[in-house]
Amino acid sequence: MSELRKDPVVERWVLVADDALRSPVIPRSRDRIDGGLLCPFCPGNEHLCPPDIFANAPNGFVSVHAGWQLRVIPNRSPLLMVEEGHRRSGEGLYDKITGVGANEVFIETPEHGIRQSQMSPAQLECLIWAYQSRIHDLRKDGRIRSVYIYKNCGVQAGATLDHGYSLLVALPIAPRAVAEEVEGARRHFLIKERCIYCDVIHQETAAETRLVAESTCFIAIEPFAPRVPFETWILPRRHAPRFEHIEPAEVHDLALIFREVMSRIDAGLCSPDYNYWIHSAAFGNECDPYYHWHMEILPRIAPPTGLEGGTDLYYNTTLPEDAAEYLRRLVIP
Amino acid sequence: MSELRKDPVVERWVLVADDALRSPVIPRSRDRIDGGLLCPFCPGNEHLCPPDIFANAPNGFVSVHAGWQLRVIPNRSPLLMVEEGHRRSGEGLYDKITGVGANEVFIETPEHGIRQSQMSPAQLECLIWAYQSRIHDLRKDGRIRSVYIYKNCGVQAGATLDHGYSLLVALPIAPRAVAEEVEGARRHFLIKERCIYCDVIHQETAAETRLVAESTCFIAIEPFAPRVPFETWILPRRHAPRFEHIEPAEVHDLALIFREVMSRIDAGLCSPDYNYWIHSAAFGNECDPYYHWHMEILPRIAPPTGLEGGTDLYYNTTLPEDAAEYLRRLVIP
Repeated sequence: MSELRKDPVVERWVLVADDALRSPVIPRSRDRIDGGLLCPFCPGNEHLCPPDIFANAPNGFVSVHAGWQLRVIPNRSPLLMVEEGHRRSGEGLYDKITGVGANEVFIETPEHGIRQSQMSPAQLECLIWAYQSRIHDLRKDGRIRSVYIYKNCGVQAGATLDHGYSLLVALPIAPRAVAEEVEGARRHFLIKERCIYCDVIHQETAAETRLVAESTCFIAIEPFAPRVPFETWILPRRHAPRFEHIEPAEVHDLALIFREVMSRIDAGLCSPDYNYWIHSAAFGNECDPYYHWHMEILPRIAPPTGLEGGTDLYYNTTLPEDAAEYLRRLVIP
Repeated sequence: MSELRKDPVVERWVLVADDALRSPVIPRSRDRIDGGLLCPFCPGNEHLCPPDIFANAPNGFVSVHAGWQLRVIPNRSPLLMVEEGHRRSGEGLYDKITGVGANEVFIETPEHGIRQSQMSPAQLECLIWAYQSRIHDLRKDGRIRSVYIYKNCGVQAGATLDHGYSLLVALPIAPRAVAEEVEGARRHFLIKERCIYCDVIHQETAAETRLVAESTCFIAIEPFAPRVPFETWILPRRHAPRFEHIEPAEVHDLALIFREVMSRIDAGLCSPDYNYWIHSAAFGNECDPYYHWHMEILPRIAPPTGLEGGTDLYYNTTLPEDAAEYLRRLVIP
């Protein structure tokens, strides 16, 4: 099992495996991705995975392969488990919590090796629906305070298989990255009585220089201070603190704009490795007036250096205004 | 030239190149390191580099190669330059500062491809002295608020050459990573009237379970909540907010314990890629009673995933207690 440990100075949480062998386990290098000769995510190999949490889409879409279009399974080596008791304890200066929570894998498609830009809008809609559905379910467990969806695509993004998958982690804490956004949004709201993300959307749609794509319900932009070249955010126009509460028309629209953004990134940057994550408010409703869920997509062209790690200062060689213009002008088939 | 842009929500700074060509520049992949057939850092190729800021050690140590033991040069594509004017400006919600500062490279040794664990204590002492000396010099420029030293060793750590080098960045701001530590240390001091790092040193030397090495002036530990397997910190026993003010006896002692730690990491983990950085207080003296400089060394065995990037929650498969015991027990030649 695992435990969450908090750094006593900066209050950063780390999930540490506490059932390690008495000799330390060095994780295998992720220099390469497994060949896929016997991919555990391909149809026919379902027995290599833990049992499904669920499979198939609710809309009756049936795969040509083994009867499923999308599967959700527990991670085989879960970071956290709902079966674990919830205990908080201390050790002098230090604090820790048992690793209660959940860690699930979304197998996005039965087809091996296709990228999200190649998935149909219906498949992407099904994936978004599955994300929502799992969050709603996990939310019923009162010990869980936040749920995050993220994706690793390619070796540079930390992926370990090349069959398309994304991940969910449900936590008994609110991790720092979103807590900091909530705090920043709160500061802005206290002064302005407005949501800062709504203000960003207003300024970006007026200026248009960092705009990549627009739809009825969403905009896609290169943020003003992007950490990596071609970092792209998708924001809902409607103020909403939580991703899981978007409505069916918005799910449809999100699938379309997400597919357009990924197609532009793949066409313009030779199908790079990438991560994305969905930032959504933790459970509770304190931050509802001022927090605004969104999606952040980061192409991984170069590994981070000691500058980012040591100072949290990022160095970006591409102006977001140039990146936006380049992505916007591409002709997508 | 470049500019510093601040994310309006989380106040994270990004250094963006603002003289980019009108078509976006995609940085080259760092999948591999340049071959070194014509290494710009090797003796005889000094003409391939910008002119030295200084060369050689003050102790008269003379290299067998081209007369230098260590060189400091400006980065060929500097992230920041002292020649730049210092202007702050706004754009609606957004804030930026011109890229005033400095970015320097320490060529640690004339010998190509040797690791820091293979350098002599005298060479490492010379490197530490050079770090200190450059910080003292840059400190004279009133526009500079903080200076950071960091190292990228190997592709996974973001290195671009395999001739040993480390880097310095001098900034007109205090970046988030250290500002957060200062803030955490301040909270502790307000309650306890003690430095939290002094408390950590006290607890770790008493417990011994996470101790890797000890010397007269320093301790090396695996921190309680390590971000990556075998993350190791070196802390001075004496409370001191700033690295650049350590005394000659401490420089000597630091070279010895650093060499021991790097030898243990190299022997135990098959010479992994790694980053390190020195966290030292920004200029000014507000945090002198409660901030404590230190060095953080992070082996880079696997690339970060969307979990770390998206939530700032780290997943570590090796307990620091196991890592410390493993490193401690190794027999070093």
